[in-house]
Amino acid sequence: MDDNYYMQQALLEAKKAFDKDEVPIGAVIVINKKIITRAHNMTEQLNDSTAHAEILALTSAYNFLGSKYLPGADLYVTIEPCLMCVGAMYWSKLQRVIWGADDEKNGFKRITGNNFPFHSKTKITSGILKSECIQLMQAFFKQKR
Amino acid sequence: MDDNYYMQQALLEAKKAFDKDEVPIGAVIVINKKIITRAHNMTEQLNDSTAHAEILALTSAYNFLGSKYLPGADLYVTIEPCLMCVGAMYWSKLQRVIWGADDEKNGFKRITGNNFPFHSKTKITSGILKSECIQLMQAFFKQKR
Repeated sequence: MDDNYYMQQALLEAKKAFDKDEVPIGAVIVINKKIITRAHNMTEQLNDSTAHAEILALTSAYNFLGSKYLPGADLYVTIEPCLMCVGAMYWSKLQRVIWGADDEKNGFKRITGNNFPFHSKTKITSGILKSECIQLMQAFFKQKR
Repeated sequence: MDDNYYMQQALLEAKKAFDKDEVPIGAVIVINKKIITRAHNMTEQLNDSTAHAEILALTSAYNFLGSKYLPGADLYVTIEPCLMCVGAMYWSKLQRVIWGADDEKNGFKRITGNNFPFHSKTKITSGILKSECIQLMQAFFKQKR
């Protein structure tokens, strides 16, 4: 059970979003090697632009644990989070955030530049299964054109 | 019905949060001079660190209107929004965002610096009923010490 395994699980969520005609982004949250929540983007279905995979995964985790902090948790997401999602991750005090492919248009880095927007206790990793993550997005937007 | 009036309404929400021992921040969303949603911070009550006044107000507005965008809407909030809330506002394509007092510790500006994180169609105003907004926060944190 390594980063590739958990990202593969996040990709399965992203594929569920794809099949529902949602922007295909998926996320899982892991504590002690166990996946406690799985979520995918549902902004169209819920008519709610806050319903990104990461926000839904965080809210599920808070409900599941009865806590508004997730200090021992790792969040895997297929695409670089947006500013909203990074802000939400800041409050959750995650142990790690791991994403697949960068998102030059909507990713947080375009806005935060060199400032580190995560909690000081959070470590970040990117590029895990990058090709698979980006290919799903490209396939989605190609069919939309 | 001007900015002061709507900020006063957001302050009434902030006072509800104060009375529930929540960080006292309130928000209202206005379309065509009519308040369509009112919300206050509920992170303790919901055990959910995404439950900021602004996120709850946005989600209510999406549900109320059946739309995931709010192009003709103005969001009033008593305190400078955090990164999560600003990111959520970006996606909502609000007409205006108006806040009372700046928040040097948790406000978005500390992270975004000179980059403008709102949607290009969104106009921002700050400093409305600034003293009342900050006094409520100070009273809250004073009693916590």
